[in-house]
Amino acid sequence: MSIIVQKFGGSSVADAEKIHRAARRAIKAKIEGHRVVIVVSAMGKTTDKLIALAQEVNPNPPKREMDMLLTTGEQVSISLMAMAIEASGHQAISFTGGQIGLITDSSHTKARIRSIDADRIYRELDDGKIVIVAGFQGVTEEGALTTLGRGGSDTTAVALAAVLKDSVCEIYTDVDGVYSTDPRIVPQARKMKEINYDEMLELASLGAKVMHSRSIEFGKKYHVPIHVRSSLTDTEGTMIVAETKGMEDIVVRGVTLKKDLARVLLMGVPNHPGIASNIFARIARHSIVVDDIIQNIVEKAKEANIGFTTSRSDAKEAATVCEEMAKDLGIRQVEVEERLAKVSIVGVGMKTHTGVASRMFAALAEAQVNIQNITTSEIVISCIVDEKDGERAIQVLHGAFSLDQPENGRA
Amino acid sequence: MSIIVQKFGGSSVADAEKIHRAARRAIKAKIEGHRVVIVVSAMGKTTDKLIALAQEVNPNPPKREMDMLLTTGEQVSISLMAMAIEASGHQAISFTGGQIGLITDSSHTKARIRSIDADRIYRELDDGKIVIVAGFQGVTEEGALTTLGRGGSDTTAVALAAVLKDSVCEIYTDVDGVYSTDPRIVPQARKMKEINYDEMLELASLGAKVMHSRSIEFGKKYHVPIHVRSSLTDTEGTMIVAETKGMEDIVVRGVTLKKDLARVLLMGVPNHPGIASNIFARIARHSIVVDDIIQNIVEKAKEANIGFTTSRSDAKEAATVCEEMAKDLGIRQVEVEERLAKVSIVGVGMKTHTGVASRMFAALAEAQVNIQNITTSEIVISCIVDEKDGERAIQVLHGAFSLDQPENGRA
Repeated sequence: MSIIVQKFGGSSVADAEKIHRAARRAIKAKIEGHRVVIVVSAMGKTTDKLIALAQEVNPNPPKREMDMLLTTGEQVSISLMAMAIEASGHQAISFTGGQIGLITDSSHTKARIRSIDADRIYRELDDGKIVIVAGFQGVTEEGALTTLGRGGSDTTAVALAAVLKDSVCEIYTDVDGVYSTDPRIVPQARKMKEINYDEMLELASLGAKVMHSRSIEFGKKYHVPIHVRSSLTDTEGTMIVAETKGMEDIVVRGVTLKKDLARVLLMGVPNHPGIASNIFARIARHSIVVDDIIQNIVEKAKEANIGFTTSRSDAKEAATVCEEMAKDLGIRQVEVEERLAKVSIVGVGMKTHTGVASRMFAALAEAQVNIQNITTSEIVISCIVDEKDGERAIQVLHGAFSLDQPENGRA
Repeated sequence: MSIIVQKFGGSSVADAEKIHRAARRAIKAKIEGHRVVIVVSAMGKTTDKLIALAQEVNPNPPKREMDMLLTTGEQVSISLMAMAIEASGHQAISFTGGQIGLITDSSHTKARIRSIDADRIYRELDDGKIVIVAGFQGVTEEGALTTLGRGGSDTTAVALAAVLKDSVCEIYTDVDGVYSTDPRIVPQARKMKEINYDEMLELASLGAKVMHSRSIEFGKKYHVPIHVRSSLTDTEGTMIVAETKGMEDIVVRGVTLKKDLARVLLMGVPNHPGIASNIFARIARHSIVVDDIIQNIVEKAKEANIGFTTSRSDAKEAATVCEEMAKDLGIRQVEVEERLAKVSIVGVGMKTHTGVASRMFAALAEAQVNIQNITTSEIVISCIVDEKDGERAIQVLHGAFSLDQPENGRA
């Protein structure tokens, strides 16, 4: 009998009615003959409210106590979920992370899972119960409560599916799967039947909010099939799986748009060893998150232009830091450009297909979109463009790579 | 270095400001040279809100899951308390019941404490930390979360003081101690310097809401001195202690009034063995709480009149149950009288002084208060009176036993 691990996020357990809806889904899977494990997040905005409460008491709370506080959110959800299932006449039992021996390291607020004791779960499943586990949390060897960081409940679900034999992981969310691009911008966007871990990882890092990167990495590492689907309908969603041969037939699987970017350009940087490391160490010290780095060497390698993109909210501070740095390091000039966006195409097919980049550039040129910078990796090509061109750019690219066509009918 | 266990109830940790106030009190004790352990309840009305949430999901929730739910309330409080202390530059560490090895039996929602592992607490105290423990909760040997029932945080505090050597237990509350009677009714009411466990137990069962009976019993059993005091002021409160010789010099320590009582009288009950047990078993089956039982035999023991008092809210159902029972058992008549009250005098001094009851009855007679029934125990005498006479009765008794005089100046 196969095991289904069903994960319900905060919005899927936000009130009594939604908890009952999630409970019915688990019961349905049970009646269909599966053994069912549920992982739940904290209800609705609970975690945000707890964080605000902590801030009120101590603007810089100890991380251990933060974990003590936040783990209560999921504990509330698991108990209510068990009550909902029992109210429908089925048997359920809830467990905190600690109670199923989900052991982590002691990095409070961003702990890593070390091991899970599957025996306790098997025992309750053998007893005919639906097992409910608190997402996002674990305990250290010494018994201190820990949390796994943002997206932690997804990680718990995938990790459970990894240790439970013959299991599949279902992630229930408020969208019904992973789309070729943002359907709010490109109405022709199509839901994908499947996508591989690497593609999903890139989509996540490019701003698709369906799942957190860490849980996808976990799925990839332990070969856990992940089914992203809607908590509101019975429609099949998107399967996140290992790469299969046929997958490479599709060159581009998704198109993404990341807005609100700014670029800082350092012009005339003395070109000697270690200077880039010096620059980015100083930027990191100010907790400015760098998106992409662009470097081009000019004037016969005596000096370089170094640039980077960052979120618009960090732009001002980045500029201040760079102006100071310019004085110290003999950098000629600092330029900041805001209102930029990044459009990217993602697909494992790129590894075996040629001419993908030129097809992208041609499509953007035809649409009069000016490309300001280009970055590439094995399965991604990204272009920095004016923010005002961003939406038009992904519309054009979506069509140019036939993403509006059924998957089996694409060029 | 002595240990102080400070317990703060829900109203004393209801918001960030109150948590900081409680934290300052703990820090003050620490600076004065004590080792400090704090026990906290859930913030404000948290527990009631969680119960309402559970009811919405399942009107008859499994008790194990109820405990899973309710224990989160205290867990939130301990983490915030630790954050507050750290914000003031002092070291603190919070623990759930399970983390300090507070082992209970498995009677969910009303578990009994079996043992506490004091070593972990000593270790952190030795480290210079203020230790914060979640009240009201424990774990079974198997690791399931349990709660101790109403008043459970008091029980946790007293139990900790029982296992920690050289410790005193301070119960912080919104009144500044235990009074000779209700100061809202008798302005001359005096705060007591001390009271013994038995007197306090009687006062609690007669409606004084300062502490729950179970924690007082615990204190009595393990000889824990309990200091009931205000969370708002530094005034000394009332010490609950073992009986000392001098205590018996004071005949009556407190006067209580319990309102909203009703009396059900069963007239002409056939007087044969087992009938009383039969009657009260049927009443208990309907969850009607019986306060006092009154029985007088009439007509040469062929039949008896049996009566009992109960809360007014239970009176209607009690009457219905008794009417049915009257038919089955051949009871002649059922009479219900509402709007009654019970006035009581409490004091260990009664054990060694004579004439206490007659002094009470004389005082009531002089004040034109008609006594409807009398019940007595070793250290309590209670009279059932008309509810309209209740407040006048305790005013008169308070004066008659000189409770408005300083303790060392009483007759």
